[in-house]
Amino acid sequence: MKAYNLDHVAIAVADLDAALAEYEQLYRVTPLHREVVAEQGVEEAMLAVGGSFVQLLQPLGPDTAVGKFLERNGEGLHHIAFAVADIDVALAHLREEGARLIDEEPRIGGRGARIAFVHPRQTTGTLIELVEPAE
Amino acid sequence: MKAYNLDHVAIAVADLDAALAEYEQLYRVTPLHREVVAEQGVEEAMLAVGGSFVQLLQPLGPDTAVGKFLERNGEGLHHIAFAVADIDVALAHLREEGARLIDEEPRIGGRGARIAFVHPRQTTGTLIELVEPAE
Repeated sequence: MKAYNLDHVAIAVADLDAALAEYEQLYRVTPLHREVVAEQGVEEAMLAVGGSFVQLLQPLGPDTAVGKFLERNGEGLHHIAFAVADIDVALAHLREEGARLIDEEPRIGGRGARIAFVHPRQTTGTLIELVEPAE
Repeated sequence: MKAYNLDHVAIAVADLDAALAEYEQLYRVTPLHREVVAEQGVEEAMLAVGGSFVQLLQPLGPDTAVGKFLERNGEGLHHIAFAVADIDVALAHLREEGARLIDEEPRIGGRGARIAFVHPRQTTGTLIELVEPAE
C-alpha cells in the first residue's frame, strides 16, 4: 500500500471556463479531459502538468460538497490525490492503522477510477483522495 | 513559458516529525530531502510521490509567512509549484499578461532552486510558486 504517484491536486473554482482560460494564458496548460461527475456534484477538468494533473472543480450547485466549500472558503486548494495500485488493499491498510475514512468502500470517480476519501482531520488538515485508475 | 511539471504541492504543518511519521505510516512515502530554508522561515521535507513531491512546511516561528498561515487556518494545503525551464522568461510572460506577482525577481529556495511566487488573487485563489530547478 504505497502511494506511487501524486495523481492530482484539486482546486475548487467558481467558473470553470474562466479558470481554464487563465491557466492556459498564464501557464500554457490545457485540459486533457473534462467531465461532469454527477455523483460528486462537480464538473471537472484535468490539466496535465508533467506526471500529475491539476484538477479544476466547479460545483454543479450550492448544496454540493464543493459548493459548500466555495461558500465557506472561496476558490482555492481543495484536496490532493494519491494513486494506489489496489484501493481495497489501501483502505484495509488505513483501517488497520486506525485512520478516519470518509469512504469505507470505493466509489466511481472521474475517468472511471475507483476512489475514496480519507478524512482531513487524519493527516495534516489535508483532504486526501485515493485513486485506483481505471486502466 | 510552459509549466512542464507539477513540482510539488506544499502543506503547512505544525510538527514536521509527526507529519512525516504519519505519511510514512499511512501512505509509505518517505522524505528524499529535508532542509531549513531560513530566508523563507521554514523547515521543509520533500516526499517523493511519483514525478512530484509533497512538501511539508513547518514554520521556524509564529511571525513567518507559514507561521501566520497556521495561526489563521491551521494545518493544510498551502501552495502548488510548477516547474519552468527559465524562470526569468516565465516572470516576463506573467508580467506581460498583467499577472499580479509576489516576487518580481526570483529568489533562492530549497535545493538551490530559483523560485518566485504569484499572488493567490491571480489564479483561482491559489498561491502558485514557479520553480526553476538548480540542475
